[in-house]
Amino acid sequence: MTTVNRQVRLAKRPVGRPDDSTWEITSEPIPEPSDGEFTVKVDYVSLDPAMRGWLDDVKSYVPPVAIGEVMRTHAVGRVVASKNAKFPEGQLVSGQFGVQEYALSDGRGALAVDESLAPAPTWLGALGFPGMTAYFGLTDVGRLEKGDTVLISGAAGAVGSIAGQIAKLKGATVIGVAGGPEKCAWLTEDLGFDAAIDYKSESVGKALRAAAPDGIDIYFDNVGGEILDAALARLRKNARVALCGAISGYNATDPQPGPSRYLSLLVNRASMTGFIVFDYLDRFPEGMEAMSEWIRAGEIVTREQVETGGVEAFGRTLNLLFDGANTGKLVLKIS
Amino acid sequence: MTTVNRQVRLAKRPVGRPDDSTWEITSEPIPEPSDGEFTVKVDYVSLDPAMRGWLDDVKSYVPPVAIGEVMRTHAVGRVVASKNAKFPEGQLVSGQFGVQEYALSDGRGALAVDESLAPAPTWLGALGFPGMTAYFGLTDVGRLEKGDTVLISGAAGAVGSIAGQIAKLKGATVIGVAGGPEKCAWLTEDLGFDAAIDYKSESVGKALRAAAPDGIDIYFDNVGGEILDAALARLRKNARVALCGAISGYNATDPQPGPSRYLSLLVNRASMTGFIVFDYLDRFPEGMEAMSEWIRAGEIVTREQVETGGVEAFGRTLNLLFDGANTGKLVLKIS
Repeated sequence: MTTVNRQVRLAKRPVGRPDDSTWEITSEPIPEPSDGEFTVKVDYVSLDPAMRGWLDDVKSYVPPVAIGEVMRTHAVGRVVASKNAKFPEGQLVSGQFGVQEYALSDGRGALAVDESLAPAPTWLGALGFPGMTAYFGLTDVGRLEKGDTVLISGAAGAVGSIAGQIAKLKGATVIGVAGGPEKCAWLTEDLGFDAAIDYKSESVGKALRAAAPDGIDIYFDNVGGEILDAALARLRKNARVALCGAISGYNATDPQPGPSRYLSLLVNRASMTGFIVFDYLDRFPEGMEAMSEWIRAGEIVTREQVETGGVEAFGRTLNLLFDGANTGKLVLKIS
Repeated sequence: MTTVNRQVRLAKRPVGRPDDSTWEITSEPIPEPSDGEFTVKVDYVSLDPAMRGWLDDVKSYVPPVAIGEVMRTHAVGRVVASKNAKFPEGQLVSGQFGVQEYALSDGRGALAVDESLAPAPTWLGALGFPGMTAYFGLTDVGRLEKGDTVLISGAAGAVGSIAGQIAKLKGATVIGVAGGPEKCAWLTEDLGFDAAIDYKSESVGKALRAAAPDGIDIYFDNVGGEILDAALARLRKNARVALCGAISGYNATDPQPGPSRYLSLLVNRASMTGFIVFDYLDRFPEGMEAMSEWIRAGEIVTREQVETGGVEAFGRTLNLLFDGANTGKLVLKIS
């Protein structure tokens, strides 16, 4: 058995799109747990658009990843050595373990994973932060009500695909925006979206007018840019825009234009509200109970795109997000 | 006594800034009241930035003023003939009487004016829609709380000057943005603002960093444009942006850029919410009671800039708003 723990560390802050020079692979001995700790052999790590923001040295909702630090991420793995009775050897756990083969944890933020409910990668998706982001973004920030018309961008992604299905389960009409015919077909045929707009091949504004002739009540925004403007132009009275992300501009090196149609918020008495899922940790039990119930009943389709190649593959796998090359939750198999 | 009612009608939709060709002065006989109606001799009409929006043929929160229609506005005047017992001859009333010398009303939206509380022009300002806009925009949309740091643009205008004073009365720290040293001195010396920023002579971003080193909890926006971006850059966690107006772009003929710093809403879990004072009509008694009490106690300074010249002066008086040439509530004396 190996005694080496290979890790992905931030080598250099990227300007624009991350590349090979952004990351370095380092090795150190597998950590041994002290009292109260346990060692996890990491099986899968999560790749999320928000990671891009953590690489910039700016004040934000979390400190940036430091140069030389193991890249921050959520992961699922198995306890291989333990001095913590709550997480015994052999237990599958999720937690903020970082992009590395082995991680030491004192149990804070760690969660025992129930494989009988869903396989490990799903605990980084529908049953992880993306699922909770979708749940609280829609129900709390978006104040979803039965009968609402809901527009979701990045709809074939980890958050969007779950958000759309929750909205359907709660009695909304749901329109998704995604890139390419395969993703759009997945939304309407497998996930039950009422309509899908392929932003790569059609005008979002025109397609949205057709799909939501009376306008939209909620826009769940994962992408920003021109699609945000198209959505603003179609707001109904008292509409809510839930700002979850803006991936279209994350690798931009020039200042990105703001939403020129923002005064639609004024004439429609609408709101645009940003949120960070970490603020809902106290309410995760509510979200996890709902999500588990839907998954158990087969009412939510979960999908993970599992890439392989271990820690060496992290850099190129992350960039799949910015290429729109993932459907569902993107994870990387580490071991 | 004259039998002629002179009126300002919309002659042509302006492209950009309204000019002489926008308006026409027409004459018709003074209207006679039927049962339930009364005739008002208009003393003062209100001039408001929102009027500019009513001149464009676009879908908005109210229909546009039609070509040939008497220009819409609130006004104060005296009943000169009445077949409505609630509004007898001699009563001073406010209502949506339009820009004309005489108006017919059936009493809907009309309000008896108590001159012992404040003179007639104040009923178009602090005790009219601007005052209610300030009150509900701050307390309801902005969810003002004691200890908040509040930034107000257009702070020397009809709405901003009242909003700032309400915020002070409710225990906030208040910073105003206005154009020129006289307006700024008025804010800090007469209205009790904690600080004033002269956007014509200093960088709003830099001055705001100095005046609110810990950021702002509420931004009450009357102007849009670069000042909105400067405010977004200084939001605190859970901050609220109340979108009241965006006068900086009202006469623009090119599409105006949106707020490029809007993702500050996301990282700060902040919201930007538009509102229209007409939605608060049901709650006006609450706002009017509070405002009347403050005025009676001398706790709010009211100021009106009364221009003269009657209906012929309407066009040039309106443009004073877009030149930033008014302090406090702009009204035009009609008779």
